Amino acid sequence: MLLLAVKALTFKNRQFLSRYGIDVVTPDTVTNNQIPEIVISYAWDNIIGDKMLNNPSSKLKWIQAQSAGVDYLPLELLKKRGITVTNASGLKAIPIAQTVIGYILYFARGLNIYATRQHWEPFTNQYLINELPVLVFGTGRIGRQIASHIKSFGGVVYGVNTSGRPVEEFDEIYSINNYQEALAKVKIVVDGLPGTAETQNFFDSRFFEQVNQLFLFINIGRGTTLNQEVLLTAIDDSRVKYAALDVTTPEPLPKNHVLFERLQILLTQHTSWGENVNAGRIGGLFRLFEKNVPGFVGNKSFKCNVVDLDKGY
Amino acid sequence: MLLLAVKALTFKNRQFLSRYGIDVVTPDTVTNNQIPEIVISYAWDNIIGDKMLNNPSSKLKWIQAQSAGVDYLPLELLKKRGITVTNASGLKAIPIAQTVIGYILYFARGLNIYATRQHWEPFTNQYLINELPVLVFGTGRIGRQIASHIKSFGGVVYGVNTSGRPVEEFDEIYSINNYQEALAKVKIVVDGLPGTAETQNFFDSRFFEQVNQLFLFINIGRGTTLNQEVLLTAIDDSRVKYAALDVTTPEPLPKNHVLFERLQILLTQHTSWGENVNAGRIGGLFRLFEKNVPGFVGNKSFKCNVVDLDKGY
Repeated sequence: MLLLAVKALTFKNRQFLSRYGIDVVTPDTVTNNQIPEIVISYAWDNIIGDKMLNNPSSKLKWIQAQSAGVDYLPLELLKKRGITVTNASGLKAIPIAQTVIGYILYFARGLNIYATRQHWEPFTNQYLINELPVLVFGTGRIGRQIASHIKSFGGVVYGVNTSGRPVEEFDEIYSINNYQEALAKVKIVVDGLPGTAETQNFFDSRFFEQVNQLFLFINIGRGTTLNQEVLLTAIDDSRVKYAALDVTTPEPLPKNHVLFERLQILLTQHTSWGENVNAGRIGGLFRLFEKNVPGFVGNKSFKCNVVDLDKGY
Repeated sequence: MLLLAVKALTFKNRQFLSRYGIDVVTPDTVTNNQIPEIVISYAWDNIIGDKMLNNPSSKLKWIQAQSAGVDYLPLELLKKRGITVTNASGLKAIPIAQTVIGYILYFARGLNIYATRQHWEPFTNQYLINELPVLVFGTGRIGRQIASHIKSFGGVVYGVNTSGRPVEEFDEIYSINNYQEALAKVKIVVDGLPGTAETQNFFDSRFFEQVNQLFLFINIGRGTTLNQEVLLTAIDDSRVKYAALDVTTPEPLPKNHVLFERLQILLTQHTSWGENVNAGRIGGLFRLFEKNVPGFVGNKSFKCNVVDLDKGY
């Protein structure tokens, strides 16, 4: 069977696939005749992807996404076609959580002040992590990794998920319909929600009306979950002091966008997952992907990371 | 006996002292006649301090410093006069260690790039803490707190102290005369040395000649331990990529000092210990000080935090 390798594969990866009878084509070399023969898309290419989905005789059965969020894929259409999507959930939890702790210490320890201060004027009005309780919306692998770091600094961290079911790393979990008690106790909110119909515009004016003296609002979920205008108003009203936004609407942000102009906002341009080219985690996507190969080749079953196409995560 | 309270005392603190027969004067209210009667200086005031030390009939016997480093006190003279100095070692370990982790994540996760970037240009060449082994010079309470955070991020951390004696939180300890093997293995150096005759100019051209691809040099020790000119040359030669300096020579830095001009250098103006006015640790100095009060009043003995006036720490 044919695999389209949108992300690079090593020689060893190809040997592994070959043992399961899987041949590899790449976006550079794939021919129009081969496109309907592709069964597995290893990461996603919009142009070739459209060609596969628009071809009624396409054999595509499995998309391995290169990201945790899969809101950029046509999930409804994929469901109709019986195509399985596996995501990269967990792969980026460690780098994203380190960026989040970086955001917190950046503002808590006054580094935001010193980053641009070019004269001597000491700033001591700083905070410790245990003085800034955190509420994380989303208790998947990224949320859990964040929580475990907060605990190691002696901090307090609450989580919000759909049902309110307990998750080990958190001090307490609240359900998404009943998080107000937790919100009243915290100084930092982390938006780690996936981009779905339900989470669209979740952090809206009703949410921010409940917020009084928030120290920091972080978005590492999806830009669509946040009403940026309302956040800006909350900052101007001093109900929210700082914000760190990895994801925004739109991406890329156009030149002279208002978000670039606020000193209280740190923008990391959807790179909270960032890794250097020599990182040991290169190939991490394949290590996750390969776990599902034997089952898929055998009887079209999957061991892990299958996306619920109705829920969208 | 009389105590000079250079740092503010609460009503409860004064009640405690009164039980031990200790009366309190403050710099605002102390009279010239009272100055030679002062037995304890709670924190240090340079002007009144000089008056006490220049008065041959001064009864001063104990100085409780407000800091871990005591290089600003005339240690030789104090030794001659039989005056004991206790320091605040341990009091600032938690805030300083959080600032240090903040420095590391600031540069490792690309926040230094984004702090001033006002256009869309994603930067992904980022690092994780476990990819940046750390060498800490100084394995006292601050060094140990830093090491324990590095370990909780899955990182590697070596320590350097006088004798090379093992210290729990570190992966390995090297002696100050034999740290080269460790230096060759690390990407981050933390200068946490006290300011003494021995550490003067320790990080000099000989030290930096041994450094090749250092990611980050941190100074939270004393400005006197580092030759700043040599560090600047190492940055210009790309042997050191970034620096975070809490302490500098001089302090304050004059306007237009070259250190303010380098994008690769973060300066935190001797506030890595910073705490907000509402912090639960206000009064932390007294909690440390009061441990020594019963012994001192009883038989002039001390339980903890006594400075070796020969070593200077």
